[in-house]
Amino acid sequence: MNTVVLTDPPRPPRDVVEAFAGFGVATVHEAMGRVGSLGPDLTPIQQGVRIAGTAVTALCWPGDNLMVHAAVEQCGPGDVLVVATAAPSVHGMFGELFATALARRGVAGLVIDAGVRDTADLRAMGFPVWSRHVCAQGAVKATAGSVNLPVVIAGQVVDAGDVIVADDDGVVRVPRSGAAGALVASRARVAKEEASREAFAGGELGLDRYGLRGLLRDLGVVYRTHEEYYSSQEG
Amino acid sequence: MNTVVLTDPPRPPRDVVEAFAGFGVATVHEAMGRVGSLGPDLTPIQQGVRIAGTAVTALCWPGDNLMVHAAVEQCGPGDVLVVATAAPSVHGMFGELFATALARRGVAGLVIDAGVRDTADLRAMGFPVWSRHVCAQGAVKATAGSVNLPVVIAGQVVDAGDVIVADDDGVVRVPRSGAAGALVASRARVAKEEASREAFAGGELGLDRYGLRGLLRDLGVVYRTHEEYYSSQEG
Amino acid sequence: MNTVVLTDPPRPPRDVVEAFAGFGVATVHEAMGRVGSLGPDLTPIQQGVRIAGTAVTALCWPGDNLMVHAAVEQCGPGDVLVVATAAPSVHGMFGELFATALARRGVAGLVIDAGVRDTADLRAMGFPVWSRHVCAQGAVKATAGSVNLPVVIAGQVVDAGDVIVADDDGVVRVPRSGAAGALVASRARVAKEEASREAFAGGELGLDRYGLRGLLRDLGVVYRTHEEYYSSQEG
Amino acid sequence: MNTVVLTDPPRPPRDVVEAFAGFGVATVHEAMGRVGSLGPDLTPIQQGVRIAGTAVTALCWPGDNLMVHAAVEQCGPGDVLVVATAAPSVHGMFGELFATALARRGVAGLVIDAGVRDTADLRAMGFPVWSRHVCAQGAVKATAGSVNLPVVIAGQVVDAGDVIVADDDGVVRVPRSGAAGALVASRARVAKEEASREAFAGGELGLDRYGLRGLLRDLGVVYRTHEEYYSSQEG
Amino acid sequence: MNTVVLTDPPRPPRDVVEAFAGFGVATVHEAMGRVGSLGPDLTPIQQGVRIAGTAVTALCWPGDNLMVHAAVEQCGPGDVLVVATAAPSVHGMFGELFATALARRGVAGLVIDAGVRDTADLRAMGFPVWSRHVCAQGAVKATAGSVNLPVVIAGQVVDAGDVIVADDDGVVRVPRSGAAGALVASRARVAKEEASREAFAGGELGLDRYGLRGLLRDLGVVYRTHEEYYSSQEG
Amino acid sequence: MNTVVLTDPPRPPRDVVEAFAGFGVATVHEAMGRVGSLGPDLTPIQQGVRIAGTAVTALCWPGDNLMVHAAVEQCGPGDVLVVATAAPSVHGMFGELFATALARRGVAGLVIDAGVRDTADLRAMGFPVWSRHVCAQGAVKATAGSVNLPVVIAGQVVDAGDVIVADDDGVVRVPRSGAAGALVASRARVAKEEASREAFAGGELGLDRYGLRGLLRDLGVVYRTHEEYYSSQEG
Repeated sequence: MNTVVLTDPPRPPRDVVEAFAGFGVATVHEAMGRVGSLGPDLTPIQQGVRIAGTAVTALCWPGDNLMVHAAVEQCGPGDVLVVATAAPSVHGMFGELFATALARRGVAGLVIDAGVRDTADLRAMGFPVWSRHVCAQGAVKATAGSVNLPVVIAGQVVDAGDVIVADDDGVVRVPRSGAAGALVASRARVAKEEASREAFAGGELGLDRYGLRGLLRDLGVVYRTHEEYYSSQEG
Repeated sequence: MNTVVLTDPPRPPRDVVEAFAGFGVATVHEAMGRVGSLGPDLTPIQQGVRIAGTAVTALCWPGDNLMVHAAVEQCGPGDVLVVATAAPSVHGMFGELFATALARRGVAGLVIDAGVRDTADLRAMGFPVWSRHVCAQGAVKATAGSVNLPVVIAGQVVDAGDVIVADDDGVVRVPRSGAAGALVASRARVAKEEASREAFAGGELGLDRYGLRGLLRDLGVVYRTHEEYYSSQEG
Repeated sequence: MNTVVLTDPPRPPRDVVEAFAGFGVATVHEAMGRVGSLGPDLTPIQQGVRIAGTAVTALCWPGDNLMVHAAVEQCGPGDVLVVATAAPSVHGMFGELFATALARRGVAGLVIDAGVRDTADLRAMGFPVWSRHVCAQGAVKATAGSVNLPVVIAGQVVDAGDVIVADDDGVVRVPRSGAAGALVASRARVAKEEASREAFAGGELGLDRYGLRGLLRDLGVVYRTHEEYYSSQEG
Repeated sequence: MNTVVLTDPPRPPRDVVEAFAGFGVATVHEAMGRVGSLGPDLTPIQQGVRIAGTAVTALCWPGDNLMVHAAVEQCGPGDVLVVATAAPSVHGMFGELFATALARRGVAGLVIDAGVRDTADLRAMGFPVWSRHVCAQGAVKATAGSVNLPVVIAGQVVDAGDVIVADDDGVVRVPRSGAAGALVASRARVAKEEASREAFAGGELGLDRYGLRGLLRDLGVVYRTHEEYYSSQEG
Repeated sequence: MNTVVLTDPPRPPRDVVEAFAGFGVATVHEAMGRVGSLGPDLTPIQQGVRIAGTAVTALCWPGDNLMVHAAVEQCGPGDVLVVATAAPSVHGMFGELFATALARRGVAGLVIDAGVRDTADLRAMGFPVWSRHVCAQGAVKATAGSVNLPVVIAGQVVDAGDVIVADDDGVVRVPRSGAAGALVASRARVAKEEASREAFAGGELGLDRYGLRGLLRDLGVVYRTHEEYYSSQEG
Repeated sequence: MNTVVLTDPPRPPRDVVEAFAGFGVATVHEAMGRVGSLGPDLTPIQQGVRIAGTAVTALCWPGDNLMVHAAVEQCGPGDVLVVATAAPSVHGMFGELFATALARRGVAGLVIDAGVRDTADLRAMGFPVWSRHVCAQGAVKATAGSVNLPVVIAGQVVDAGDVIVADDDGVVRVPRSGAAGALVASRARVAKEEASREAFAGGELGLDRYGLRGLLRDLGVVYRTHEEYYSSQEG
């Protein structure tokens, strides 16, 4: 592995980043053209919390949190610490002491593709976490890795300075260079969804609203009554 | 795949269906002779909610929710939408806009053997969901499937008009034709369990209540004190 | 399988066992030198509850809870029932009737490497459970196993009379003979963590507190600014 | 569970069944309109073997092969024994002694949604097996189930008398009533594939042969040279 | 973790150990009363090989093979190296160089609850391996563990000096103190199986040979013809 | 998803690419500093084959192989087709007809993070494949994706023109720009391994060759005889 700590990664403007907290993860993901989801296996340890911040990334050896210590120093207000491992790991590599240090630095939360522990304490102190595992088993501090190089989680590359949005639906990554555009697209999508919501609440069907009846017909979908269908089957 | 939409499936009497909401999923499953459980992998996104309704089924291509749109139109008051996919899928194929449309139609909830998203919104609006995944990644609308043909989830066949009961323990399916009988059996089981509950609260043991001491003996189970056992091991 | 029920296993002094409830699972695990965690797959069905008690163990055939009935009789005040199966099992092998019997006997909770059901009822009655699955599908009572012999869960041997501590982070096992020592070590660790917590809240870094800067250097970790690093890459 | 053994299930004509052995599992699956695959988790213990036969089904309790014994008696020449369990099971529920009994009865092979053992012996005696697990751990004979009722494996219903085709790609199920039609469709598909094979061997592209260039265009797919694309990105 | 290397563990007599190579893993497992199987997830990288030897155990940190180096020195002729990790690991922690060193020392093979690599070379040099993963990703040498303390794999405790038998069905562990007895039981089982094999080859049914017809009746299993059953269902 | 097909990606010099076929995947991975492994879940459908080639990448919708058709046209002699999906997919998205087309174009093999089928035919025709699943269930051709944009498999970014090396140990990716350097490093590593092999075959220990005895001592590892250790435990 590359063993380097990168300092001072570029970050998008603060107001752009914070504006993402107004949108759900699903909305942002959709607005970007359906990319960036970190998948169903990173789940929140709390419910009803949404954060948006800039990624500080750490790549660790499985079961080894040495580089998390190095990453803490690189974190500042509004950052989200994003921890990946060089191979799958269930270890609780992060707990309440780390959260105390990060909270002091104004960090918005943690996304970790491994385990966490002290989850009751983390909830009590209001430090939001999305993780792959909850596990009491701790980590060693023996092997080098990197900070602020790109990491990959669930098939998505996350680079330092990317925007991370996380809520009950999981985590989405917005590339730093595309943050402003994704914000515009998210706003547009919300407006469009609001119109659809009203239509659906009023009884309109997606079949009509999205013009899907013709598509169904073209794909050969036919309508039969239950009775017709099963009586013809038996004939 | 068969590409047909069946309309007007027969449904059991409304009062029969609604009566199931008075029983837990485990009770109904047990009362039917231990069949119908949709297994441990369909979990509720909310806690403390129980629903009972009639299935409207949809079979979709993985990552494609075209047939969910077609299914919405077939749903009415008291129905439960049941969505299966032709192969495993983690996609969030259902979200708050679909729930808005279904709530307007009086639908009781969703059971989906794939992913959902907008879970915070779904909880906020009180639309109950049991799913295999929570995932922000959305679906396309490109491939045909079926509505109201039998689908299979976790090894159970679910047909249109079957009764679906779901709570914190998961989901159970009651065949349409067996609904009235299952209701009678569920009532009997609850009465029997109430008697057992009182007995156990009073200190009686299952060993005695269910006559298991003889079975243990027949199976060769012997009782030893901890001390006897380990001293004889060493001898 | 060995088919024996051991009665009267030795238990550590009551006050020692109860004192463990003052420490988190992660703390106890750490204090013992990082052993004893039952891993990330045994999760609580409730939130914010911590228990400590002495293990009564049962080994069952998959999908068969006959030996749970035998184990109930061996349980007394302050015990934790620990159920393992001879091979992986998703069945809901334990529910509210068992919990009624155990609560009556003063049992602190259940740890089961299989499924449970009636989870809403279990939460309502305040009986704490850590399980691998939640599943409505019940068990039979047909095959013999053992009670109070050592069982293995997640690679940890759990013997009758061992101390079990469980909270939101999972479950840890303290060997009976090491309970007093683990208690002393847990107290020492809490004191040490309290000092670290204050230091981190005051802005000190783990890099400095744990003397990791030298280790990073020895391992060849270098610091570069983001700009330096990428401009040198392109050169 | 239903505890019944059905004898004398109807079987399709012998020559129809045997003719399926001339087609690969993928071909039959495709010819039926892409249904019936028993999925990627049932794998052969041998390589390069293909069988076709009629299903005799058994539903067992996990880790319990009592009903396999009952099923053996229902098997005759050209049958394939298909074993499912009421919940997931890793046990080696079938081994060389069962195979000896089945081989004597002219049975074509075994499909089991659980474990097998004695695999070296099974390969040596040429008895073909598709299983979910290989595991030395054996089963008990304690709990009732059914024989020749429909079972579900990997989301597919398999009924007694259905045709089972299995090869290195896995297992496919052809419904008894559709066997003759599936055979005709398989023959047609093989002819069509032969034409495609020649075309592809001659250099024709699927894009042209299947008319996909227009579809790509309609879906908005554009072609760029690598150089154009990345130089425009940087601009 | 305990960080100790134990030298000179007691081993059962050489002729006892070697005699186990005459029995299959399933036979030994069965003969011991169905315990000791290391489960379906440890698979051989070769086919048709069976070994029996005495365990030298190593407990490693995930992705770290330092203690494998320490363990090599403790291995002698007829030993089997058994490697476990403190948490799940996919790393290829063992390859052809280790095998060269072990082969030189007369070691019979490797059982590892993690990954291996150089599998083509290992097969070519005839060094047998059972592993959980095959993975090219290598390990570091940074964290301490133990050699010849008991380790746990798939819920089985393996201690130094235990007998390990491995073949195409997986791996089984025979406790050192029970080796002689297990050998006697294995011989008896083989004789019994030989008799059953002849009976089954001659057409006898397990239903009759094991007296299961009465059990089926007692459990309420009824026999119906397919036609009777379905005509009564419709009535 | 981005819907673009990139043509004419830059490729490393042919002789550099082909030289990689002389090294095992584990060697190349190690030589690059332990990066680039595509993990344990991509397994070969054949045994004893090694390929090296340049990546042509395709990103498909799950269960949809439209973009594989588009990718075939971009493949030439010495290329390796690398297929990823936008979410996990078990479908057999590739079979013998595709292989016929690719073989005609001189393509070295396929790496696919989804399923394949026709595996017996693929082995018979000698077209090498590494896949995540083998599954008879086919794909549709309905949704757009990309060709020759970077894809991510098992946490590794694979870009068009990267070098792919695959053998029995799995798959490794060498970045296009680093190919020449990785080749030099691989040669150096092979030389070093050859020296170690001779040393180990001659009886030298890794403990001595790599100077690990001091490290063990520094980490607190102590040596005890088995007898000493257990007698002191009991004292």
